[in-house]
Amino acid sequence: MKIAVDAMGGDQAPQVVVAGVEQARDLYPELEFDLYGDPQQVTPLIQDSTRLKIVPTSEIIEMGEEPVRAIRKKKDSSIVQAATAVKEGRADAFFSAGNTGAILAAGLLIVGRIKGIDRPGLTSILPVTQPGSDQTRFVYLDTGANAESKTKNLLQYAIMGKFYAENVLKVANPRVALLNNGAEEDKGDSFHKEVHQMLKQSADLNFVGNVEAGDLLYGKADVIVSDGWTANAALKATEGTAKMFMNLIKDGVKQGGWRALLGAWLLKPALKRIKNQMSTSTYGGAVLLGLKAPVVKTHGSSDAEAIKNTIVQIKQMIDVNLIDQTVDYFSADQSREKLDN
Amino acid sequence: MKIAVDAMGGDQAPQVVVAGVEQARDLYPELEFDLYGDPQQVTPLIQDSTRLKIVPTSEIIEMGEEPVRAIRKKKDSSIVQAATAVKEGRADAFFSAGNTGAILAAGLLIVGRIKGIDRPGLTSILPVTQPGSDQTRFVYLDTGANAESKTKNLLQYAIMGKFYAENVLKVANPRVALLNNGAEEDKGDSFHKEVHQMLKQSADLNFVGNVEAGDLLYGKADVIVSDGWTANAALKATEGTAKMFMNLIKDGVKQGGWRALLGAWLLKPALKRIKNQMSTSTYGGAVLLGLKAPVVKTHGSSDAEAIKNTIVQIKQMIDVNLIDQTVDYFSADQSREKLDN
Repeated sequence: MKIAVDAMGGDQAPQVVVAGVEQARDLYPELEFDLYGDPQQVTPLIQDSTRLKIVPTSEIIEMGEEPVRAIRKKKDSSIVQAATAVKEGRADAFFSAGNTGAILAAGLLIVGRIKGIDRPGLTSILPVTQPGSDQTRFVYLDTGANAESKTKNLLQYAIMGKFYAENVLKVANPRVALLNNGAEEDKGDSFHKEVHQMLKQSADLNFVGNVEAGDLLYGKADVIVSDGWTANAALKATEGTAKMFMNLIKDGVKQGGWRALLGAWLLKPALKRIKNQMSTSTYGGAVLLGLKAPVVKTHGSSDAEAIKNTIVQIKQMIDVNLIDQTVDYFSADQSREKLDN
Repeated sequence: MKIAVDAMGGDQAPQVVVAGVEQARDLYPELEFDLYGDPQQVTPLIQDSTRLKIVPTSEIIEMGEEPVRAIRKKKDSSIVQAATAVKEGRADAFFSAGNTGAILAAGLLIVGRIKGIDRPGLTSILPVTQPGSDQTRFVYLDTGANAESKTKNLLQYAIMGKFYAENVLKVANPRVALLNNGAEEDKGDSFHKEVHQMLKQSADLNFVGNVEAGDLLYGKADVIVSDGWTANAALKATEGTAKMFMNLIKDGVKQGGWRALLGAWLLKPALKRIKNQMSTSTYGGAVLLGLKAPVVKTHGSSDAEAIKNTIVQIKQMIDVNLIDQTVDYFSADQSREKLDN
């Protein structure tokens, strides 16, 4: 089992990437890694080179670059080379903490789509933060691979999200919901009304109806599907508000004098639990579902621990044959469609 | 200056509605009120009937009712009668804390649109919570009057939002931004790219570019415009996350024993400041901009103070002739369009 790693992607690359990969390597004797990057930078960081090989690359795609152009021009970049290794069967999965758009483009244009899937969906595993709930996380897609979607894309996201919840998160008969502007069946614009009916009529889904953006983290479903535009807006608003709250508390403590300082010190364990509960890095990165191999991107600000968790997530996907299951479903789906016509 | 009030709308109606109206009446000697509702319920609540008249109505539109059908069937409801009084010039503005959809429908179908405006936009005044910022609020529309929008609707929202910020909030040369999925000019789906160019090219706007949903409350603009679908999703996600955070803190304190309890007590003033900073009720309700008169809806859970603040907001709109200014602009705009053709 070999993972192609972009060693140069992320705010603290290659340091934290190498450190995280070494942690994961020590956990799983069956894992091998190819680190794509600048040998001069990467080599000195490696503590132990067991099951760990450097593949030299001479270019880096920076965070601000226009993705598709960068992929086409920088043929010897760590992202393009690592994705190419997966395409050619020299690795089983591709991982990066770099430029999201470039990773998406490399996944789509180099690794390639599963037959029968029109658009891959960027999939985040998000926390459920409802006090008292047993559920700790849910699957949320498409969080932004596609700004414009067709109704059938969302049906495909629902199936792919269901496979992920079932196999990787081990949820039996996962509840699938649609992000919409109201809970009732007749809510939404014409697009979302149509998607609602498609999801409801699918015999392969345990569809539980609509969920509103305000209830995203409340554990109302195991999989929440949406067009990439809306899911992205709701996710960013959620993350932005959470960050803002943390800033307001910090600022409030600063302005509140000794009383607030002491209060914050006493509340520290409780606030830390909240921060951990809200943290997404425990669950790994965002997976581009619908490709011929696992392609996973983590936050650019990930630390070694988050990198390690993402490798664990990739290993789980490979262990349960997530891709093969998806391929089987959609090739059967295509045969059904042919019979229908 | 007379305001037609739906006395029966809201979770604690008619009690808090009457109490809030009396507070506002005591503040402004020039304000008169017509309270539409059930006299048997409303009369005993009135402390002082100065400049305050009950207009008896026999029906109530409930929170769950389908708006347009309710408006058509319940002709003697407080919402329909109050909106009709505005249409017929017997009152200057309409206020309710009831069924949002029914208030929007009554505004659109009874009060009516300003000539030249294709769709009214539901407008919220939201807090800016960036520590250190002097700006305390911004204008945000359309938060959900229209699930499906055309590009020209957003240009009209921008103009209406600008008039509101300039006249009611007294912001000189308000910065107008577009809610989009990225900060750069080339970001967005084809719809939002087109709107970006329209806003940029308008000589009547101080357009400052795109704002992402994660930066909504960070004070990057005085007016943020969006299609109703996206603005609604981002607003609900923001409100849902804020509520969730408050719940998590409460729960963390409950689970944290005496230490957390003491910490929370010491932090109380700081947490209360945050809560006040996040609270929208200080700024009044949501205004349906683009109608021939101010039509304003407040949260169903509003207390008397929030009702009073909303009346103050309505008075400000009337004082500065917000509607007349909008009418003048759009009738001039229509003449310009005719000349262009």
